[in-house]
Amino acid sequence: MKIERFEQNPIITPKDVPPSRNDFEVVGTFNAGVTRFNGKIMLLMRVAERPIEKKQDEELAPILNHQTGQIEYFKVPHNHPDLEIPDSRVFFYKKNTYLTSISHLRIATSSDGINFNVEPVPAVFPQTRYETFGLEDPRITLIENTYYITCKVVSDLGIATSLITTSDFKNFKRHGIIFCPENIDVVIFPEKINGLFYALTRPVPRSLGSLGIWIASSPDMINWGRHKCLMSPRAGMYDSARLGASCVPIKTARGWLEIYHAADENNRYCLAACLLDIEDPSKVIAYSNEPLMQPQADYEINGFFGNVIFSCGATVDDEIITIYYGAADCVIAGAKVKITDILNHLEKV
Amino acid sequence: MKIERFEQNPIITPKDVPPSRNDFEVVGTFNAGVTRFNGKIMLLMRVAERPIEKKQDEELAPILNHQTGQIEYFKVPHNHPDLEIPDSRVFFYKKNTYLTSISHLRIATSSDGINFNVEPVPAVFPQTRYETFGLEDPRITLIENTYYITCKVVSDLGIATSLITTSDFKNFKRHGIIFCPENIDVVIFPEKINGLFYALTRPVPRSLGSLGIWIASSPDMINWGRHKCLMSPRAGMYDSARLGASCVPIKTARGWLEIYHAADENNRYCLAACLLDIEDPSKVIAYSNEPLMQPQADYEINGFFGNVIFSCGATVDDEIITIYYGAADCVIAGAKVKITDILNHLEKV
Repeated sequence: MKIERFEQNPIITPKDVPPSRNDFEVVGTFNAGVTRFNGKIMLLMRVAERPIEKKQDEELAPILNHQTGQIEYFKVPHNHPDLEIPDSRVFFYKKNTYLTSISHLRIATSSDGINFNVEPVPAVFPQTRYETFGLEDPRITLIENTYYITCKVVSDLGIATSLITTSDFKNFKRHGIIFCPENIDVVIFPEKINGLFYALTRPVPRSLGSLGIWIASSPDMINWGRHKCLMSPRAGMYDSARLGASCVPIKTARGWLEIYHAADENNRYCLAACLLDIEDPSKVIAYSNEPLMQPQADYEINGFFGNVIFSCGATVDDEIITIYYGAADCVIAGAKVKITDILNHLEKV
Repeated sequence: MKIERFEQNPIITPKDVPPSRNDFEVVGTFNAGVTRFNGKIMLLMRVAERPIEKKQDEELAPILNHQTGQIEYFKVPHNHPDLEIPDSRVFFYKKNTYLTSISHLRIATSSDGINFNVEPVPAVFPQTRYETFGLEDPRITLIENTYYITCKVVSDLGIATSLITTSDFKNFKRHGIIFCPENIDVVIFPEKINGLFYALTRPVPRSLGSLGIWIASSPDMINWGRHKCLMSPRAGMYDSARLGASCVPIKTARGWLEIYHAADENNRYCLAACLLDIEDPSKVIAYSNEPLMQPQADYEINGFFGNVIFSCGATVDDEIITIYYGAADCVIAGAKVKITDILNHLEKV
């Protein structure tokens, strides 16, 4: 499998992104939804920020007060007996989980797909009761002049997926939660199939079941049903812990080509691919027994949360897919791969 | 609050229910959906069974092989180091969860609401890939001659809610999963509100969020969206651990009256009630600061899993609600309460 990383990688880093407030710092710009708009390549990036005032001897969670629209700080000193810090992204205090940063969505555009202009202000900022811990990991699907953005919304009420639409990337309309907690990595197919919209989802159950990719259908994008399990983690393999859809499925002569992410028990996130039946995408035809792409560059191994390649989108030009991906939950990078190379790499189910 | 338990309680016990196979024993008949059909009161009971051959020194999980339609046994000896037994209902082996019984749905009918005739064979038996660990806790909503049954489906793929419809309680049609893992305690409202169907749901998230009651709406019963959180557990109270809808909401002059269940950290399950806005049921008007009903009778305290009152349905006659409930995950009991008494017991939000 020949994957060509951009020589210029990483192409966008936190220092390229002005914070939303002077007293904030950007700790990560990653996991960007990708589309084409007005002749340019557009990234809708997840930008994670935290207050500069955070001290070395405390944990701090920036949380939206959705009634005032202000971000408030929840702080716990490091020597508190009820504090637990599993990794750089979260901390646990008493029975509750907090995030160390709050994410919004920010636009970056490019004519060549490599050099991007980052907009100075957020495109979509946390606002509702369900977004008090942030907006994360958008995917963009263009259908008939409307851009459908699925977005992970995080709050103390849970992690769910909301739908946002836009036609101009200036005015964004929220349509509420389309997949209730806990469900993430939702990617909508780029056209109706036999009269229905389809989405890949990643339920996160508590009691029974593993972290696999599911599929659902909808007559109207707002209401979803007919949930089915597509693929589950495989013990002892690169995808032993979890899988989730990454890019908008690409229509090929052999089926829907989906580039997804997969992680093992060590939280090492790779990219993989599968092929779904063109008429019934709940049927998996083929998939990756080896990762398509795994962390190896320095910017993929070291960062806010290392050993992560996580894509939320790609562009397609004839036979070439350009995958944009968050590396180490910190920066954005790109890589090119031929569709035929991916198809040849897949193994029949 | 005056709750009158039936003098005849418990009204249905495992010995009243013939097993589905000669080599099975019924360990529980409980959590019954309730409706009226052909002039009688009908319970659609959850019947939990296990093989008689289970030995004292092993754990045994009966599991449907959905390809053959046969139930197979997964056994682990008690001295196995990877076995963990948290309670009588489940065991953990390696990283997986197993149930010690498998449930199907069984009809019982009555003219007086107290003396029931139990059908000799199952009405709905586990059949699909998503039902290999059983079918549980049905709720029945009658709308225009169709009975809509929401049902917890359990398998190694997760715990989800499926929709089944019937008009005669002989032919049942499965409509697939309407709420993907993990989501239980789904109850559909008995009429459309402003053109949409509504359901109460109980998402079970893993990472963030508590076990509260949510609401969703649907144009067609199959596809659901606009998920919102209604009520969450309250620390230090009888509902500190989890809440879930129990009965089909009852339309009153003051709003939709919902009888729900609530448990604390000790898994003590009580019944409570809330009142939802008649035009917008995502608005909670009032609810119970004290339980409506809590385990106190012997059959509620001792059983397959004790200290549980768990209802899946009720009948309404003018001003009287007759609540049918599973007691101690083992038997079915009944109790009567006046609607006005419940309304007077509720406190404004």
